[in-house]
Amino acid sequence: MTAALGTSPADRARTVDLGPAVELVSKEEGHRQPLAPEFVSAEDFSPLEVGYDFGRVRREDIESGPRNIWRYKKLLPVPSNVEEVPNTEPGCTRLVRADRLAAELGVRRLWVKDDTGNPTHSFKDRVVAVALAAAREFGFDTLACPSTGNLANAVAAAAARAGWRSVVLIPSSLERAKVLTTAVYDGALIAVDGNYDDVNRLATELAAERETWAFVNVNVRPYYSEGSKTLAFEVAEQLGWRLPEQIVVPIASGSQLTKVDKGFRELGELGLVDASPYSVFGAQATGCSPVSAAFRAGHDVVQPVKPDTIARSLAIGNPADGPYVLDVVNRTGGAIEDVSDDEIVEGIRLLARTEGIFTETAGGVTVATAKKLVDNGVLDPDAETVLLITGDGLKTLDAVEGRIGPRATVPPSADAVREVLGG
Amino acid sequence: MTAALGTSPADRARTVDLGPAVELVSKEEGHRQPLAPEFVSAEDFSPLEVGYDFGRVRREDIESGPRNIWRYKKLLPVPSNVEEVPNTEPGCTRLVRADRLAAELGVRRLWVKDDTGNPTHSFKDRVVAVALAAAREFGFDTLACPSTGNLANAVAAAAARAGWRSVVLIPSSLERAKVLTTAVYDGALIAVDGNYDDVNRLATELAAERETWAFVNVNVRPYYSEGSKTLAFEVAEQLGWRLPEQIVVPIASGSQLTKVDKGFRELGELGLVDASPYSVFGAQATGCSPVSAAFRAGHDVVQPVKPDTIARSLAIGNPADGPYVLDVVNRTGGAIEDVSDDEIVEGIRLLARTEGIFTETAGGVTVATAKKLVDNGVLDPDAETVLLITGDGLKTLDAVEGRIGPRATVPPSADAVREVLGG
Repeated sequence: MTAALGTSPADRARTVDLGPAVELVSKEEGHRQPLAPEFVSAEDFSPLEVGYDFGRVRREDIESGPRNIWRYKKLLPVPSNVEEVPNTEPGCTRLVRADRLAAELGVRRLWVKDDTGNPTHSFKDRVVAVALAAAREFGFDTLACPSTGNLANAVAAAAARAGWRSVVLIPSSLERAKVLTTAVYDGALIAVDGNYDDVNRLATELAAERETWAFVNVNVRPYYSEGSKTLAFEVAEQLGWRLPEQIVVPIASGSQLTKVDKGFRELGELGLVDASPYSVFGAQATGCSPVSAAFRAGHDVVQPVKPDTIARSLAIGNPADGPYVLDVVNRTGGAIEDVSDDEIVEGIRLLARTEGIFTETAGGVTVATAKKLVDNGVLDPDAETVLLITGDGLKTLDAVEGRIGPRATVPPSADAVREVLGG
Repeated sequence: MTAALGTSPADRARTVDLGPAVELVSKEEGHRQPLAPEFVSAEDFSPLEVGYDFGRVRREDIESGPRNIWRYKKLLPVPSNVEEVPNTEPGCTRLVRADRLAAELGVRRLWVKDDTGNPTHSFKDRVVAVALAAAREFGFDTLACPSTGNLANAVAAAAARAGWRSVVLIPSSLERAKVLTTAVYDGALIAVDGNYDDVNRLATELAAERETWAFVNVNVRPYYSEGSKTLAFEVAEQLGWRLPEQIVVPIASGSQLTKVDKGFRELGELGLVDASPYSVFGAQATGCSPVSAAFRAGHDVVQPVKPDTIARSLAIGNPADGPYVLDVVNRTGGAIEDVSDDEIVEGIRLLARTEGIFTETAGGVTVATAKKLVDNGVLDPDAETVLLITGDGLKTLDAVEGRIGPRATVPPSADAVREVLGG
């Protein structure tokens, strides 16, 4: 697992097997460079994205693959034998036909993509699995990240399963429950005296100097972020190889939304689905809604904000992919909306009550935003719609604490129960 | 969803479509009676089990079915259109090749069946889904249970998804976090002033008098418990249609263990797998180990105990299926062992550290018991072994609280991190 023959990850980049991935391309001006563990173009300083030479990909290749994201390996920057190396095997989560939620929202055909079924119960297992596969190929031996939640869980679990060292940096003020869910995997969990910004700065510094550490969302970010395409691939395959007409995606850094769009486009370009039109809608918490604000104002740049919302997994005040989110939403005829903390909690409760799915605050944002978009006449109630539910309610119990509880407390008698339920 | 034409569930029993299920059979003396929402034989007072007329079942029928437990509908007491009615779609969870855990335990070929991937993250989604499908057929309109944890989550979620009323009875002393994870689904969650025994007694009383309430683990228990067979079916199918040589199963009421055995036997009898020999091993917490104690003493009856263990989801002091567990274990050449609370926590940590799977205390019992059985020379280290991991660590955080945490707390400097990790 260590770099072979004393070569550094940068040296090995020349000979890596990352399947269909052939180069990195800068997002702004399209400068091309060889595959490497880099994330910003030295030419135009824009983010680097993976460029591919897909060749022919058939539905049968995918359908005969494993029941996890590796069935799409021919569309991802991963080695051709990726499924043979121990990994958490994320993906292939349920796409649930949500008729009861649809009735409440007043839409005709609604689906919920329930990513709480992943190994650590969020979509982060997808992106981390792709990051680890690429990092292995580059000769890294340590998987690292700064995080306060889902990403920390996913990195620590994936590293444990692979027999890698993990280094997870968290603010020392993090709640005990969130510390436990990462510490249990027994990697190097390091509490940093400082806020999340301090932790993030430290991660960037360490990524630059520790040449065998793959910080999933820093130096291997171009590979990592491609993992979100698998959400689009699965939705299309689960719908019977077609695209939905509308999809609602929560926005943190904005990466996921842009990759869902990229996934849909790739499927169309490769002839795996009809390239039918679709609209991408973005969901934010009002307490951290810089992209929604920019959309509303008609801007193409995003003004950073200081987050203040219960939707902590979406609380990125300066979202790196904000401008690209605006591009996607405008190009596809979508929209972006934001919802209050109260609406987020109502969104969580609505999804649980109608479909039996308990999501975290990010999912509450998605559901509540969908409702608002329908109520405002922005989301077409007659168009087939998918909601991305990306994380689990068990991880954000504090959001519903004090809002819900038993209907009644009674003495242990059948009469008392009967009385509560009205006969 | 209400009883049609004013017929009661008991009346409807004569015309129900429960697929291959044709009758109920008493476990002790084999008395047969028509399918009905009943759970104890009036003839010999032993538990009733579902009897089948399977007809021909082929692997292709199963393989072409949905990616959930309904692919096995021809082996379950459910209507032939069961997958078309809204349900939580549990099952088809990962079977993980666990080489790193195998190396630590000193066994050659080890698999972990990771049931944390179910909709509410425990195997209870399986049994509740089968109970609901049967209850619908009998004309019930309310899904109910007494519970303190996983079962409450599963019942409330399944009822929400189906648009049914749920009635979940809990002791009023239950911890806030456990209340929230059921209350969020907005059924009738009723806190009862009393201990779990009081709640259980109340449930039995209500089951007798409320004729449209299906108490999943009381009046529709014969159907409910059959859901556990799907664990055996999936293991066999995921191994490429063959049985493992050894399987380790946690024991609460003992039902799951007996149904895993039943599932393996049915597959063999139907020619879906070679009826190769297998041994079933049972796992208990020492603080509630009546079946383990009976096994050790060579008894065929089980002496009730007062539970005192952190493995609360296994803490049934008077396990209904205890004697049948002893039968299965003795017949298959298995064994039963129990482990201390400290060993349970070590089992949780061992599985997390080696395979990236965070299980609840019940899973810790399974892992720790497997380790003990290997160490004692009881489990054959050269035989292919499966461990059933039936629930999620996010639900029993208190078990690891105070035992794990960050490796260090440091100032926000790269030097400090470097020092912690040794250069």
